[in-house]
Amino acid sequence: MNAVSVISIGNELLSGQCLDTNRAWLGEQLSLAGLNVVSGFAVSDEISAIEESIAHATAQANIVLITGGIGPTDDDLTRDAVAKFLGVELEFRQELYAGIEDFFAKRNYPMVQKNRVQAYIPAGAKSLRVPSEMKLMFSNEILPQIIDKAGKNVVVTKRIKCYGIGESNLNETLGDMLKRGQNPLINCTVNQGVITLHVVANSNDKKTAQEMIANKISQLQSLIGKFIFGYDNETLEGVLGKELQSRGKTIALAESCTGGLIAKLLTDLPGASDFFQCGWVTYSNAAKNRLLGVDAKLLEEKGAVSREVALEMAKGALERSCADVAVAVTGIAGPGGGSEEKPVGLVYIALVSSEKTFVEEFNFPPNREVCRLRTAQKAIAMVRKVFLATV
Amino acid sequence: MNAVSVISIGNELLSGQCLDTNRAWLGEQLSLAGLNVVSGFAVSDEISAIEESIAHATAQANIVLITGGIGPTDDDLTRDAVAKFLGVELEFRQELYAGIEDFFAKRNYPMVQKNRVQAYIPAGAKSLRVPSEMKLMFSNEILPQIIDKAGKNVVVTKRIKCYGIGESNLNETLGDMLKRGQNPLINCTVNQGVITLHVVANSNDKKTAQEMIANKISQLQSLIGKFIFGYDNETLEGVLGKELQSRGKTIALAESCTGGLIAKLLTDLPGASDFFQCGWVTYSNAAKNRLLGVDAKLLEEKGAVSREVALEMAKGALERSCADVAVAVTGIAGPGGGSEEKPVGLVYIALVSSEKTFVEEFNFPPNREVCRLRTAQKAIAMVRKVFLATV
Repeated sequence: MNAVSVISIGNELLSGQCLDTNRAWLGEQLSLAGLNVVSGFAVSDEISAIEESIAHATAQANIVLITGGIGPTDDDLTRDAVAKFLGVELEFRQELYAGIEDFFAKRNYPMVQKNRVQAYIPAGAKSLRVPSEMKLMFSNEILPQIIDKAGKNVVVTKRIKCYGIGESNLNETLGDMLKRGQNPLINCTVNQGVITLHVVANSNDKKTAQEMIANKISQLQSLIGKFIFGYDNETLEGVLGKELQSRGKTIALAESCTGGLIAKLLTDLPGASDFFQCGWVTYSNAAKNRLLGVDAKLLEEKGAVSREVALEMAKGALERSCADVAVAVTGIAGPGGGSEEKPVGLVYIALVSSEKTFVEEFNFPPNREVCRLRTAQKAIAMVRKVFLATV
Repeated sequence: MNAVSVISIGNELLSGQCLDTNRAWLGEQLSLAGLNVVSGFAVSDEISAIEESIAHATAQANIVLITGGIGPTDDDLTRDAVAKFLGVELEFRQELYAGIEDFFAKRNYPMVQKNRVQAYIPAGAKSLRVPSEMKLMFSNEILPQIIDKAGKNVVVTKRIKCYGIGESNLNETLGDMLKRGQNPLINCTVNQGVITLHVVANSNDKKTAQEMIANKISQLQSLIGKFIFGYDNETLEGVLGKELQSRGKTIALAESCTGGLIAKLLTDLPGASDFFQCGWVTYSNAAKNRLLGVDAKLLEEKGAVSREVALEMAKGALERSCADVAVAVTGIAGPGGGSEEKPVGLVYIALVSSEKTFVEEFNFPPNREVCRLRTAQKAIAMVRKVFLATV
């Protein structure tokens, strides 16, 4: 039985100043890996409270994860509490100290004496390489060790990423496949318009579990194949980037309402220079005219948020770049700027290449952040569907 | 001493399917009302686990709040666990049953036998009128009773947002101000280069608590004033946007390594069109030359990541827009593209206005995401420090 307890440390978690997103994320990852999360603790920045929570957690679970309180300041007391609970001293580790010195030297920051405390860990403890990201550290360093210790039952998971279908629709299409108590089990999570199906297979050998997963995936492919864009950590933009790259095609962007978000998403990808040419963020009418050559009269007559202007923006971007395809978006992200005729959430997305001229109207939720993200996703999906499908 | 512990019940909270927003909200309300939240528990839908958490919580606090697990289904076990902990039986209450019948009758729903369980509560317990909203129930029914029992203590909190100083450095500068056990108490959290100081004052009247906060803030101002950019929910980009807007100044951007991230951050803000003119995402050398007029020979001689190219990009952006200030960034975000001479993390940020020409070199952590975000933050901070400070 592999029971896990998660302890989150920080006064800000108790007073409600912060949501405990780390604990939720860890809970999800552990559950998806087939481990049983039995309890969670939120604890104040005090040695005795932390020590007590570790005692409670270890009574309930054979694996205890603790997050928070390992910085260099006086309210970072996790290392002291763990040492006290284990009945050992804190031990200075020269290799950790060297790493901290190196960190500051590389950034030309002065290293103050306070940071020395971060080179101390409970005697006998093993230190992890700590990237700035808790998620990376967990996935790369901790989860494999937990699974390793968790024994002979093998859990294989595969995430199937879907876009372009709603949750209830998917639910109806898949029917009994989503019922509890099956093996493989399919869990469904939704995040920002992307649905992830987590397929979890349990077996006593890895090969069988993998075959079970493969079978389930081919069933899913036949039912909802056209909505599946990727697997595991793949993203919409990542898949587009790879596809453009492998076909030697490049893209240019002209963004109004998304204000650089699409360019940002595409350049999040390492090696983006292979397929990303350039982008314009033409927020004002003047910029649309001056930078992209959109006719001033057209802007006045049709309005910046119109089918015609979206097309002109895309044409302007294609002409001014050496890209194979240009995508333009213009819309009303809100909260202001909407009217009865053109409400907040109205967006036009245009795509132009040497072969194609395409523009589509969308009505996204009238919330600035949601509208901008949905626009970016649709634009990315459009390049795959309208441009890549035919080159 | 009024110590409160909050227990949240539900498997979905442990497996990360839901964020524990109830507990965070309760923590905030309790803190704002002057109560000391000492611990939080997330517990699975099992009688023994709930009973155990109540035992732990009552050992730590004199007030224990439990949320979740009071519905009619088989996994709603809070009433059983509380009765077991108290060593009493569950008791059928006719008046509660009548209320449940009434609830269904009014909505024309059939009442199934399952719902009868909701008329049982631990013997000797007091039932609350339960509106559908946890928040309303807490504010109207529970908080007044807690405060009544607790005496009148008031807690006022204020968050102070800092940028440009490391956590350990800040700690050394503030010294004893960060020590535990003080009133006001200062808690420190770090997120993506931004440090938040949470100042928490306790008093028996609100005015005194507010004065205590104000005093502490003026002390902090005199010690680290130049690093403080805002309060409570303010962000670096939000503060810049407001400042540009209030002075009637506009900005243009030329981004290479950040690939649109700075434009995205600035246009996250509603009303960004008041201060944001336009942006170029010139990822390739060709784009820097064609779109911004950066000399092709300069690009070849100095390289795209150089002081000189950063300046030319900013100049090109200023000339091609009607903005008052232009900022350009060029750097090596990695993972590829680094060399001994120009390692991953090397970034140049340039700022040009009619009065100023400024460029600075930075060495950010060699991680694509971190490097891009740090670059964006520095660029935003630079506009405030170099441009706005003098207009």
